[in-house]
Amino acid sequence: MILILNENTDINSAEYAQLLGQLRALPGIQVRAHRIEGDLRAVTEIYLIGDTKPLALEDMRALPLVERVVRVSEEYRVLGRHKEDSRSTGFDYQGVRFGQDTLNIFAGLCAVDTPEHVEQMCRALRENGLQCTRMGAYKPRTSPYAFQGHGRSCLNYVFEIAGKYGIRVIAMEVTHESHVEEIRDALRQTGAPTGVMLQIGTRNTQNFELLKAVGRQQEFPVLIKRGFGITLDESLNAAEYLASEGNHRVVFGLRGMKTNMGDPHRNFVDFAHVPVVKRLTRMPVCIDPSHSVGSRSVGPDGVLDLVHATAQGVLAGANMILVDFHPNPAKALVDGPQAMLLSELPLFAADVAAAREAYLARARIWGKSAA
Amino acid sequence: MILILNENTDINSAEYAQLLGQLRALPGIQVRAHRIEGDLRAVTEIYLIGDTKPLALEDMRALPLVERVVRVSEEYRVLGRHKEDSRSTGFDYQGVRFGQDTLNIFAGLCAVDTPEHVEQMCRALRENGLQCTRMGAYKPRTSPYAFQGHGRSCLNYVFEIAGKYGIRVIAMEVTHESHVEEIRDALRQTGAPTGVMLQIGTRNTQNFELLKAVGRQQEFPVLIKRGFGITLDESLNAAEYLASEGNHRVVFGLRGMKTNMGDPHRNFVDFAHVPVVKRLTRMPVCIDPSHSVGSRSVGPDGVLDLVHATAQGVLAGANMILVDFHPNPAKALVDGPQAMLLSELPLFAADVAAAREAYLARARIWGKSAA
Amino acid sequence: MILILNENTDINSAEYAQLLGQLRALPGIQVRAHRIEGDLRAVTEIYLIGDTKPLALEDMRALPLVERVVRVSEEYRVLGRHKEDSRSTGFDYQGVRFGQDTLNIFAGLCAVDTPEHVEQMCRALRENGLQCTRMGAYKPRTSPYAFQGHGRSCLNYVFEIAGKYGIRVIAMEVTHESHVEEIRDALRQTGAPTGVMLQIGTRNTQNFELLKAVGRQQEFPVLIKRGFGITLDESLNAAEYLASEGNHRVVFGLRGMKTNMGDPHRNFVDFAHVPVVKRLTRMPVCIDPSHSVGSRSVGPDGVLDLVHATAQGVLAGANMILVDFHPNPAKALVDGPQAMLLSELPLFAADVAAAREAYLARARIWGKSAA
Amino acid sequence: MILILNENTDINSAEYAQLLGQLRALPGIQVRAHRIEGDLRAVTEIYLIGDTKPLALEDMRALPLVERVVRVSEEYRVLGRHKEDSRSTGFDYQGVRFGQDTLNIFAGLCAVDTPEHVEQMCRALRENGLQCTRMGAYKPRTSPYAFQGHGRSCLNYVFEIAGKYGIRVIAMEVTHESHVEEIRDALRQTGAPTGVMLQIGTRNTQNFELLKAVGRQQEFPVLIKRGFGITLDESLNAAEYLASEGNHRVVFGLRGMKTNMGDPHRNFVDFAHVPVVKRLTRMPVCIDPSHSVGSRSVGPDGVLDLVHATAQGVLAGANMILVDFHPNPAKALVDGPQAMLLSELPLFAADVAAAREAYLARARIWGKSAA
Repeated sequence: MILILNENTDINSAEYAQLLGQLRALPGIQVRAHRIEGDLRAVTEIYLIGDTKPLALEDMRALPLVERVVRVSEEYRVLGRHKEDSRSTGFDYQGVRFGQDTLNIFAGLCAVDTPEHVEQMCRALRENGLQCTRMGAYKPRTSPYAFQGHGRSCLNYVFEIAGKYGIRVIAMEVTHESHVEEIRDALRQTGAPTGVMLQIGTRNTQNFELLKAVGRQQEFPVLIKRGFGITLDESLNAAEYLASEGNHRVVFGLRGMKTNMGDPHRNFVDFAHVPVVKRLTRMPVCIDPSHSVGSRSVGPDGVLDLVHATAQGVLAGANMILVDFHPNPAKALVDGPQAMLLSELPLFAADVAAAREAYLARARIWGKSAA
Repeated sequence: MILILNENTDINSAEYAQLLGQLRALPGIQVRAHRIEGDLRAVTEIYLIGDTKPLALEDMRALPLVERVVRVSEEYRVLGRHKEDSRSTGFDYQGVRFGQDTLNIFAGLCAVDTPEHVEQMCRALRENGLQCTRMGAYKPRTSPYAFQGHGRSCLNYVFEIAGKYGIRVIAMEVTHESHVEEIRDALRQTGAPTGVMLQIGTRNTQNFELLKAVGRQQEFPVLIKRGFGITLDESLNAAEYLASEGNHRVVFGLRGMKTNMGDPHRNFVDFAHVPVVKRLTRMPVCIDPSHSVGSRSVGPDGVLDLVHATAQGVLAGANMILVDFHPNPAKALVDGPQAMLLSELPLFAADVAAAREAYLARARIWGKSAA
Repeated sequence: MILILNENTDINSAEYAQLLGQLRALPGIQVRAHRIEGDLRAVTEIYLIGDTKPLALEDMRALPLVERVVRVSEEYRVLGRHKEDSRSTGFDYQGVRFGQDTLNIFAGLCAVDTPEHVEQMCRALRENGLQCTRMGAYKPRTSPYAFQGHGRSCLNYVFEIAGKYGIRVIAMEVTHESHVEEIRDALRQTGAPTGVMLQIGTRNTQNFELLKAVGRQQEFPVLIKRGFGITLDESLNAAEYLASEGNHRVVFGLRGMKTNMGDPHRNFVDFAHVPVVKRLTRMPVCIDPSHSVGSRSVGPDGVLDLVHATAQGVLAGANMILVDFHPNPAKALVDGPQAMLLSELPLFAADVAAAREAYLARARIWGKSAA
Repeated sequence: MILILNENTDINSAEYAQLLGQLRALPGIQVRAHRIEGDLRAVTEIYLIGDTKPLALEDMRALPLVERVVRVSEEYRVLGRHKEDSRSTGFDYQGVRFGQDTLNIFAGLCAVDTPEHVEQMCRALRENGLQCTRMGAYKPRTSPYAFQGHGRSCLNYVFEIAGKYGIRVIAMEVTHESHVEEIRDALRQTGAPTGVMLQIGTRNTQNFELLKAVGRQQEFPVLIKRGFGITLDESLNAAEYLASEGNHRVVFGLRGMKTNMGDPHRNFVDFAHVPVVKRLTRMPVCIDPSHSVGSRSVGPDGVLDLVHATAQGVLAGANMILVDFHPNPAKALVDGPQAMLLSELPLFAADVAAAREAYLARARIWGKSAA
């Protein structure tokens, strides 16, 4: 790690002595100062050698006299894409491959409401040849007085119905570590007819205790969504919490950033970051067009904005799609108005296929196969 | 609640019928439609009457044909400031009064490192007549590889030393419900020589499970900080989670918003919101200048930016100040560079007193006493 | 326009009387108040009838007692897409069609530097069958000490060379009304060998005097870019300034929003707004991937981020692409490092074609032809 | 200027050779490379020596292999506060001192409407001992269909009335260079009974052509407001445009940043930046609480939010206040609802005096006199 000091720092000053003192007190770190004198100015740099990983960039940046900090060690130690790193990306779960080269659609219910709707949803998925879904049992809501999901009570029937229709993986948000136990318990009771990908929502991206708990188990893979008020770098560091505890089966989810600059969409769609996450890390990248766009607005070409956003993510190489459907949006308890209709599922799948095909064609144009 | 529909909505359309159907399916809600015809346009409004509290504004806004939604019921049911509401604000804890009319300084260590530093800090507080402090034992950090706080292991000595110097209340962040139990346990073991105000940090503002757990206990008051990627309204709703579970002793903390528009400050200082929170709710308002500003930059007038920010908050009626001091910032493990020095504590206290006095004088000018 | 007042507004209060007084003083406006009494609350609304167009929403919203304002008249009067509006979109210029159904690539130099580079660029365009380009002569730069473009002095050779290679339209930013005259003058001197689309950059989106001046002339069509610190709605209103002065040949350009939430891209890519602009207005939509992304970063699939962004915009129906190329980026005076190479132009064109084809296929899937 | 390259850059790579080539092609710049080898990694830095001022940081940052750029030359060459710089700040105009140690209140009309209102306003100012005001004649509005100000037609009476009441300086926004000529002309016709400080609004902060035009004249000082979608650094660079053309009499104005994170205020109040601007530059700092807050909301202590914001700015050392008053807000054509009443002017002045006194007391506490 290198600390670049303010221009013309006086190396005889008390502040400079204090800085060196602070740095020398760091455990396991050697300190070397470099000074380059110019005609009009001088640049001073401090090299920290040794185990600099525990040092937070923000802490170092805040030291007196420090203008900038360069970390020369690698970030995202476990999940990062390192130089000349030929390890494969991704993992298998329930017979489904999740990697930077695959694409899986998770269409389903934002919030589970009734067994009938779960059944209608799963039947439609099977009819369209899909084997993954999303089903929300635990719903974090802005207001404490809003519906918070059916929780444990719906798990058994959700799993049984999913299994009945050949669904292999359900993405399901958890907001407390006990939910993992409840899911495990329900799977045991029902004979594990399906699998679950645990989902960490945007409000919990930096709920590090939850990340640690979910990272400590290795039964279920995890989908972690980007946090809405933080930088991409900070969200990727949050994903690293999962991996640092042992669970390397992590998918990273883009779901839009919260700012009125994204109006009239609910969030500012951030799918241009799909290739960025694939470049910086080895995680498969998921997109959530439903929550990014947040409405069923349709353009003059007859295509919903949220379908356009989906296709944009796929065209840039997205590996997983989380999208809200509902057999009867009028009766949906959460986010019904942004849900797509079951009758639209074949069109949606065809649209995704067109975008995926275009992605593969584009990757071939640029000379490297994506598959 | 009123739904205002898009201009010239066709009441004979399928969409309109669908909307009415959806609304009529809402449990316990009566639906009344109003239509006002103009020469060139027509406005249609739907009134929802009954228990509309479970309906989330965002869900209603997302319904087809809906242009805007007005909730005529009150927000922040427990903590909100309602019309002609003469109930007092605030609460007493450990003999200290926390209300919208009082001011308490919580100077202390961002992160506990050694008993010696805790002792030096507490001694300085007593010498300056202060009886509250902040002491961080559980530290959420961006990187999983950064120092995460001493946790349970430091609690006993922190409480004992605090008690020895007459500290009555320690603000202490918790990031997991088990921390509350650990704090309770340590207080029991040490004979409760001091008190604790539990603190919810900005990364956990919408960690609703933590809020519910902390809200269910009534032994400790809670300081909840604003979340950095969400609106003020959403953060106030998060505070309401605490209250809805039974704990009404809640302080709301401003700590800056994360955006590069605040550069060169670490965050965008948001203390102009002090009077807003006091107007919308009955919570005492805390400011955290250390994390808002994030450096020891000094202006040409010799005053640190973070001291200016502190004074700005106090001048607008802030009720609590959370500020980082350290006996030896060079050895601080977290955020040392933004810490104030113990030798600056008397000046800081004098500065705050000047700003507070100016606040009271200003409140008198406008004709209502603040005290 | 409807003003919805705060809940339980007292119609006998002085404030209410004052509000009515203010409203009645508005010229050419009739005021009608509606009141709906509920069991627990009452809602009051004020209808303003007549020519409400001069009333700014923000002014009305700021009136005492007003909670929300609904404008029932149409926004973007000239450029907006109104209900049941079957007028065609777009325009012809220099034999090139610009509409919501066409796609034109404007590859070229961010800043003109030498006649040799202009010639190499234009030759490459002809070789790839392209007849539009971008050429920057007037460059607004953050620092007054940075290169500001060659201005008038390069125009003659730019136009001559462009004409020589069959370029029909050059997109060229203007930052002062006098530049329009200089361009007209240079075209006259050179015998009008090509055409110019005037470009308003993001720093001037709300430079209304420039917009009015450019809107008053009808010789050149105008490309107006979105402003980076304002909402989409405000940028569309800025476009309306052009049209309200008489120039209806307006293209709207997306170029990313400035916020560190878009890091590591230079700006937050906003191409999910392509269908939004097409839905709200009848303007063709341009995307500027070079300035949105701002680097030549490449993903593991071998595709540049900026090419992915381009394809995302096209896939959602973009009608025009503004993209930086340079024969020798190492010698470019502005933004060289984000420039694509001439050798990449055939690949870029093939990539765009693949994305466009996918767009058309997708539009067919959803049942309406885009072409 | 120093370019710090990506970790482990290969100095034998084609990219590295290309980078060096690009840099060596820069006119008047010498290039020196430094390389520091560690056990696991190597750091390469390139020093650019000579006249690096024309090089834009963003251009250098965008070069291949470059991770970070440090400019060791000084920014804001004319207006910046350089090291050990003991030159005085500020200037005199019309017998009024504008510096980093003074405070001037500019209360007045957001938009001139009638001579009667101008007269009532000016009379109130004289009665309160104030000799500066704001008067808007040219109003940039979001919609082209909103009232745009009376422009030239009101100037003569505004100047005459101001002179009659002893007003020495009027802050007046200009949005086109011709407005300066109109103002000069009107002053000539009326015998220069008062003075004018030209104001550049937030929509024109990066309208560099306007800045250059206004910077070329030295008759009138200039108030430039921060731009709402750009960083503080970029806004300070915009101010430097004025100075680089010759006009050094520049005041910098804070007016809030546009983001919904500032809700319910119209903008996000940014007055914590007052000391930052004073530290980075020698410009006096103005605050505009009216447009920052944008309403007359009142707290439970009886103080308007906008008055709190004003006091916050003053308490941190602001040197100028731009604030909207109106004799009859109900009849104001622009922003009436946020205007203060003439009857509130004495209270406002007393409030500002209390805050200013507290500022001076605070500056004394920290050991340096502000006056």
